[in-house]
Amino acid sequence: MKLICSKNLLNDAISMAQKAIATRSTLPILDGLLFEAEGDTLTITGYDLETGIECKIDTDVIIPGKVVLNAKMIGDIVRKLPEEIVNIEVEANFIIKITSGKAQFKIKGIEAEDYPKIPIVEEAEQMQVSQRVLKEMISQTIFAASSDENRPILNGVKVVADNNRLELIAIDGFRLAIRREEFKEELPAMSFIVPAKAMQEVSGILDPTDNPVKIYPSHNHILFDTGSVKLVSRLLQGEYMDYNKVVPNEVMSQVKLRTKDMLNAIDRASLVINVEQRRFPVTVENSDKETLIISSQTDLGEVHEEILIDLEGENIDADYNPKYFLDALRNIPVESIYLEFSGTFGPCLIKPVEGEQFLYLVLPLRR
Amino acid sequence: MKLICSKNLLNDAISMAQKAIATRSTLPILDGLLFEAEGDTLTITGYDLETGIECKIDTDVIIPGKVVLNAKMIGDIVRKLPEEIVNIEVEANFIIKITSGKAQFKIKGIEAEDYPKIPIVEEAEQMQVSQRVLKEMISQTIFAASSDENRPILNGVKVVADNNRLELIAIDGFRLAIRREEFKEELPAMSFIVPAKAMQEVSGILDPTDNPVKIYPSHNHILFDTGSVKLVSRLLQGEYMDYNKVVPNEVMSQVKLRTKDMLNAIDRASLVINVEQRRFPVTVENSDKETLIISSQTDLGEVHEEILIDLEGENIDADYNPKYFLDALRNIPVESIYLEFSGTFGPCLIKPVEGEQFLYLVLPLRR
Repeated sequence: MKLICSKNLLNDAISMAQKAIATRSTLPILDGLLFEAEGDTLTITGYDLETGIECKIDTDVIIPGKVVLNAKMIGDIVRKLPEEIVNIEVEANFIIKITSGKAQFKIKGIEAEDYPKIPIVEEAEQMQVSQRVLKEMISQTIFAASSDENRPILNGVKVVADNNRLELIAIDGFRLAIRREEFKEELPAMSFIVPAKAMQEVSGILDPTDNPVKIYPSHNHILFDTGSVKLVSRLLQGEYMDYNKVVPNEVMSQVKLRTKDMLNAIDRASLVINVEQRRFPVTVENSDKETLIISSQTDLGEVHEEILIDLEGENIDADYNPKYFLDALRNIPVESIYLEFSGTFGPCLIKPVEGEQFLYLVLPLRR
Repeated sequence: MKLICSKNLLNDAISMAQKAIATRSTLPILDGLLFEAEGDTLTITGYDLETGIECKIDTDVIIPGKVVLNAKMIGDIVRKLPEEIVNIEVEANFIIKITSGKAQFKIKGIEAEDYPKIPIVEEAEQMQVSQRVLKEMISQTIFAASSDENRPILNGVKVVADNNRLELIAIDGFRLAIRREEFKEELPAMSFIVPAKAMQEVSGILDPTDNPVKIYPSHNHILFDTGSVKLVSRLLQGEYMDYNKVVPNEVMSQVKLRTKDMLNAIDRASLVINVEQRRFPVTVENSDKETLIISSQTDLGEVHEEILIDLEGENIDADYNPKYFLDALRNIPVESIYLEFSGTFGPCLIKPVEGEQFLYLVLPLRR
């Protein structure tokens, strides 16, 4: 392999492919990136056996070939090279010579034959959506995915397309996040569950622009293609929780409030709570139809907060893990929301005042 | 104690006093800040038994008094308060009530009597210098102070004032940093050694402006006073290393080069070196009078760098720990420097092309 390429293009491609590299891999070769030069293209691939990211850049290929290079080392080297033009050449025994201006590196490569193959996803049935919209939808749901290894199916984000609507769903047994988006175009009907870790990486390859990302699901895998970057992930298989069942049909109290008021009050109430411990709740109750009281009391101290609301229905008095509210409230894209309570032991729903763009559900703690 | 004050002033004062709090203290009271309200002033003090920082803010004191509050907790609370006006009141049993708008906190305080007293430094003989200049001088020397507990005197930064000149010196046995500044005004002759940790905190209380900081040394302690903030540190006592002796009088080779060229070349050469391990050096040698070669060779690979120089004197060929060069080169405030070599086993001096604003010395590694 021998090629001449741009430092900046190379740097961007390495940074992107590195996202697929596990922080602690079991095989040294999985700490590497696969470099393949052919035609006038250099393809750089990172793969942790679950998610693979592949970036292509235009280069001047003098001798085609391939090699695996330690991702961290090649990333550090390329970032610090002095000139925009970079020469890369594989010498005998997989010694890689990298030259840029008066700087010359020789590092050891690994034989490319041993690099695991990323599953091939046929580019057949596809869906195409705005990168910015999908990126937002991921960030507004992914925090609610479970990390409990005993329920692996809930470690994924469920994606459902139907008619003009796309839905992302995450649920961990204590809370639920649904984010919906309506499109002008009809979407092909499809449904699949992407591991949350891979979904985080999908978010990383998406731009905050309306450029499209093409999505190709197959039986076991899914391909996200932005044009310059391809990401392949395995899919989770199995029965997902029937989340529609946990959403109550009847509501005892409905509260309208400003998202920020609730976020700030719960954030402050958490200051006396070790949020990782679930045993200290915040209590949410109303003093009258216009005032919601958010309070907490622990070994460390007590906090009492009041926020302005419009309450319709019965009085409220329930305990919650503040983290679940904070995760949702920090990601809600609208100024005002409804909270819908179903009594002291029923869930609390968080909804937009208009439409059904999102739905969050938080279960109360036992008293 | 009962007072009304500004959230922003309170927040700034707490952040400043927190700098003196050790990350892991042995006594819970040392995790606290002392709040003292008297007259129309609130004084907030942090002290780790070595360095104390005291900040005064104007407040409306209704009932004078004092109390100790956990620094992290009061800091987090004040930062997140909703309104600019903050009420603080000590209730029975050292319960502290903090109110701002509709947010109310009650946290436990600690009796102030148990808080250690910061040593009083008499404000007698003093020196006054620009905060910006002292801040720069600290950052350009402090990295060379030793952290070896067997030579505690070298864990300090030596400060020497004489005539119009101020000098800061740090030395760890392998390298030396001297930073000098000439002032228009005569400085009082004085010399003292401040623990490097405290010197770091001094840097933290200084503004990057030419507002003066007053410096009052006593036998055992030193007081830095910026007007709004006072910092008291103990001084290190003992015989400091005679650093003038380690600077060679005769030079075998002198090289003129661009600071950045050397910094970038050594930075890249370090990419194949685990910099914390000292056993892999960079080799510095010249190929001709105009080219300096910086190279390294380890298990990970090899790097070869060439930079443009003007060499006078004998040829160069010596090995160095790259970290020592990087620390100095990153903090050098001029574009071009001289390196002066005294052969393969003598030290390398780094000097400005004009004047004697700084002097760095790096010892070579044995071959």
